[in-house]
Amino acid sequence: MHSEAKTSIILVGPQMGENIGAVARAMKNWGLDDLRIVKPRDPWPNEKARAMAVGAVNIIDQARIFPDLSSAVYDLQYLYAASAGGRNLNKPYIYSKDLASEKIEQLKLGIIFGRENSGLTNAEIALANKILIINTVKDFSSLNLAHAVAIICYQIFTNSVDKVNNSPNIEVATRKDIDFFVHRLFSCLDERGFFQLEKKKNSMFTNLTNSIYRFAPITKSEVNSLHGILNILTKSDKK
Amino acid sequence: MHSEAKTSIILVGPQMGENIGAVARAMKNWGLDDLRIVKPRDPWPNEKARAMAVGAVNIIDQARIFPDLSSAVYDLQYLYAASAGGRNLNKPYIYSKDLASEKIEQLKLGIIFGRENSGLTNAEIALANKILIINTVKDFSSLNLAHAVAIICYQIFTNSVDKVNNSPNIEVATRKDIDFFVHRLFSCLDERGFFQLEKKKNSMFTNLTNSIYRFAPITKSEVNSLHGILNILTKSDKK
Repeated sequence: MHSEAKTSIILVGPQMGENIGAVARAMKNWGLDDLRIVKPRDPWPNEKARAMAVGAVNIIDQARIFPDLSSAVYDLQYLYAASAGGRNLNKPYIYSKDLASEKIEQLKLGIIFGRENSGLTNAEIALANKILIINTVKDFSSLNLAHAVAIICYQIFTNSVDKVNNSPNIEVATRKDIDFFVHRLFSCLDERGFFQLEKKKNSMFTNLTNSIYRFAPITKSEVNSLHGILNILTKSDKK
Repeated sequence: MHSEAKTSIILVGPQMGENIGAVARAMKNWGLDDLRIVKPRDPWPNEKARAMAVGAVNIIDQARIFPDLSSAVYDLQYLYAASAGGRNLNKPYIYSKDLASEKIEQLKLGIIFGRENSGLTNAEIALANKILIINTVKDFSSLNLAHAVAIICYQIFTNSVDKVNNSPNIEVATRKDIDFFVHRLFSCLDERGFFQLEKKKNSMFTNLTNSIYRFAPITKSEVNSLHGILNILTKSDKK
């Protein structure tokens, strides 16, 4: 895998400023600069993050803070959730060493990393297209957050060194496009009493998003078609 | 590259206990456990190293401390110096992404990492067989120490996943064997007035070791031959 657009790094709920700084330094070592942080534990800006970033303090200063993962990835087109978990989700996975085989050139990529102690929730993993598993020994797979980011940045960078991009130019939908459709669909279903048990609504939403994002990149015209289908279905419903 | 014997990690002059701990954690993620530390700045044992190691505290507790690099690598057979420097030494280099192409199976390997702020000296790099350069962008190549170790451990581990070892079994000399010869040679030269300028002795020793370790692994029988040659040369010298 390599990407014409630069890959974005998304940290969900990072706890230690030092780790965020170390992440920024690793990003800069391998040419990335778009850092997005969802609900950091400590107040932002964070001086420990700046100190640990050393020469990459510009990435810390440009980092954007988001209230949730969904809003943090709205403009991106293909997402990996770095996780050893999510095993009870029906979601494809890839090992980091095999990233070179991914056919995702020209997409705006995001790699999502979870909390130091607890990783990503299933609801967060559901938003990704694939689970990305970093190759480690089996019995000690818990990585330092900044190490995990460093490995992925390095792997993407070294993959790109030898590659030539010759994939066709298709207009892929952004997360914003798809999320808008998903929420519209969900509202339509909700209005029509699809979710009979209120308490199961959240897990059904997770399963629905998981299904949609399990597939290969969706094009803008496909999203338009989906809206068209929903238009017709909801019109006929009112008759 | 992969190695039947486990690769050893050698840290020269590390300053922060936190970094040593993070190194241990990375080693354990990728199945390594032999950590050797040359002259750590702070007293040892170091509680900050133990805290940062998380589940890899056993590696910290088993780590060995050495007074100099030479004694730290005596039992090893092939050494890489992780460095972006050493450019004025005549020493071959390899990029980390190309490690898989190295033909060093069955050797006891060591990877040497330098100080956080200043890396390795030329005299230290001279002791390695090759310089190992971690692929990064050109204008920001200064890596966090633990990130550098993590990248190399990961690269060695992922290389080994797909490889089958079928190299012939040759008995390669250890560092101890070679160093013994080098020092014997150096003494012989010194006794015979080879080093006319006392102040140039150190840099000539660095150049000599650099030349010897620049070559592919030396076998035990080759070292024996060198001793035999030196025996004959010094005998004839006394006539």
